[in-house]
Amino acid sequence: MQLVQQYQQMFEAYRAARPFTGQPEGLYAPVNYIMDLGGKRLRPAMALMGYGLFHDDASPALPLACAVEVFHNFTLVHDDIMDAAPLRRGKPTVHALYNTNTAILAGDVMLILAYEQLLQIKPALYIPAILGMFNQVAREVCEGQQMDMDFESRGDVTIPEYLRMIELKTSVLLAGSLAMGAILAGASSDDVQRLYRFGCNAGIAFQLQDDILDAFGDPQKVGKKPGGDIAQNKKTFLLLKALEIASGKAQQQLRHLLHDPGIKEEQKIDEVISLFIQLGIPSLAAGEKQRFRDLAMSDLDAVRADPDRKNALRMLAEALIEREY
Amino acid sequence: MQLVQQYQQMFEAYRAARPFTGQPEGLYAPVNYIMDLGGKRLRPAMALMGYGLFHDDASPALPLACAVEVFHNFTLVHDDIMDAAPLRRGKPTVHALYNTNTAILAGDVMLILAYEQLLQIKPALYIPAILGMFNQVAREVCEGQQMDMDFESRGDVTIPEYLRMIELKTSVLLAGSLAMGAILAGASSDDVQRLYRFGCNAGIAFQLQDDILDAFGDPQKVGKKPGGDIAQNKKTFLLLKALEIASGKAQQQLRHLLHDPGIKEEQKIDEVISLFIQLGIPSLAAGEKQRFRDLAMSDLDAVRADPDRKNALRMLAEALIEREY
Repeated sequence: MQLVQQYQQMFEAYRAARPFTGQPEGLYAPVNYIMDLGGKRLRPAMALMGYGLFHDDASPALPLACAVEVFHNFTLVHDDIMDAAPLRRGKPTVHALYNTNTAILAGDVMLILAYEQLLQIKPALYIPAILGMFNQVAREVCEGQQMDMDFESRGDVTIPEYLRMIELKTSVLLAGSLAMGAILAGASSDDVQRLYRFGCNAGIAFQLQDDILDAFGDPQKVGKKPGGDIAQNKKTFLLLKALEIASGKAQQQLRHLLHDPGIKEEQKIDEVISLFIQLGIPSLAAGEKQRFRDLAMSDLDAVRADPDRKNALRMLAEALIEREY
Repeated sequence: MQLVQQYQQMFEAYRAARPFTGQPEGLYAPVNYIMDLGGKRLRPAMALMGYGLFHDDASPALPLACAVEVFHNFTLVHDDIMDAAPLRRGKPTVHALYNTNTAILAGDVMLILAYEQLLQIKPALYIPAILGMFNQVAREVCEGQQMDMDFESRGDVTIPEYLRMIELKTSVLLAGSLAMGAILAGASSDDVQRLYRFGCNAGIAFQLQDDILDAFGDPQKVGKKPGGDIAQNKKTFLLLKALEIASGKAQQQLRHLLHDPGIKEEQKIDEVISLFIQLGIPSLAAGEKQRFRDLAMSDLDAVRADPDRKNALRMLAEALIEREY
């Protein structure tokens, strides 16, 4: 993880020297607040990694790294309003600390600031291709968020729809960050596409592991009680797969557990988990995760870049998927 | 107004042939809803006019016209949430028709769609300069909105601050639309700057006339009862000027009228209007409007472009300022 940590430090130093400024202060204070809450800075690391696969010094990718992080934080600010979330990384969310109107407007200006960062990229020759990919990714992230909201009230969500939603909501920005870094590095369009697919598929594997850990993770390692998704009837891969394959009594029992308002939360979680095990869901989910992981790695293998740095990217992806980083 | 109407028709035909499409439908339906509510399409007309000052066929500026209109409608969607406004152009606002979360997300994707439109501009040679101005204008519109929100709770707003707020909130996008049209037309940087200043100053004159009409307009012509701003203690040019120049008893009387919760709305409006007249506010406001109007026209005079089309732009600005269009 040494290379990743190095990239994260490069990004933090760059950001610390460039707080967003302007008048009125009330517009920019929430922007710097959310940007300074920290986090793993995965998207900047991906942008720098995408560039660093092809060049020793990744610093030309710093404005791109900043753009993708500002964009990511814009989505957090607006998503937190939509979810009425009080906390983000253990601190008050922007709308909770300020107010909803300020948070809407802070998010808006962050989206504009992301484009401002993109226009600072040098050599400018690569800006049109990067902007094209950025627009596509940005639009897809909104599409993923809308799909996620639609799913809450839909009873007929299919597994392909679910996989597409997590791809749009989580993977495309990670994939795009890596791919835009590679575009800026002058990588071939084949390699850019391979890195994009690698990021997408690794991101889906990552999200599937999230679903698995919510039901079957070690609470000490995951850091929260198991079954949060089950308690909320969240349409995860596990639940959708169970609804797809359960027949007869198991199907009836599962639907009853989902819709019985009288049942205690702990009992519901225990019984749904038992049903998942009975239906073989853990190994089906692990198999699906493995399938996307393998797809990701075969694309990465084919990229024509420095083997050591490709290896660093592979190890990062493995660690992220297994939640060991 | 023939030329303007021609530009508006060009824009409507272009838009009608290009509804925004994509999945999920729930994301794009509100976008097309707000875009189809109509309006004067002033910003597209400005973009086409800025181009048309220098070329006979303004159609190369249509993607730009579309970008500024989508951006403008994005601000309407989010501003309506912030103002909790139920109606827009006599129809339900997006958040009222759908819900707030859908409206936040629809606004977000519209901002991205505006950038997508900008990337379609040809020749691409002009895209960097246009994007640079678009980013600046977009950021300033957010700054103006934040200033406006800040003013509600501030007791020390100055007239220069007020003028800056209306410039940012209203003028810069009109000015920028015109100037970006001129950039695309290959106008000299001097002429681009002149057109930008023309748009800014004409926009301020337009907004000052808005303030004047609210208190002194003919209700039949304006289409609403006079004194709406006064009833809400809105910090308009009229009120800020009155607070600046009133002394002794008039100052005391004005502050009493603003803060007396017992006073009836009609009486408050009548007495504030009497005070405005007593203090000479109508002629001071008219003088200020005239000052910005003259600044605008002197910049337009200096632009080196077809005199007939410059004249059409001048007449449009005059008509807008006087609310005769």
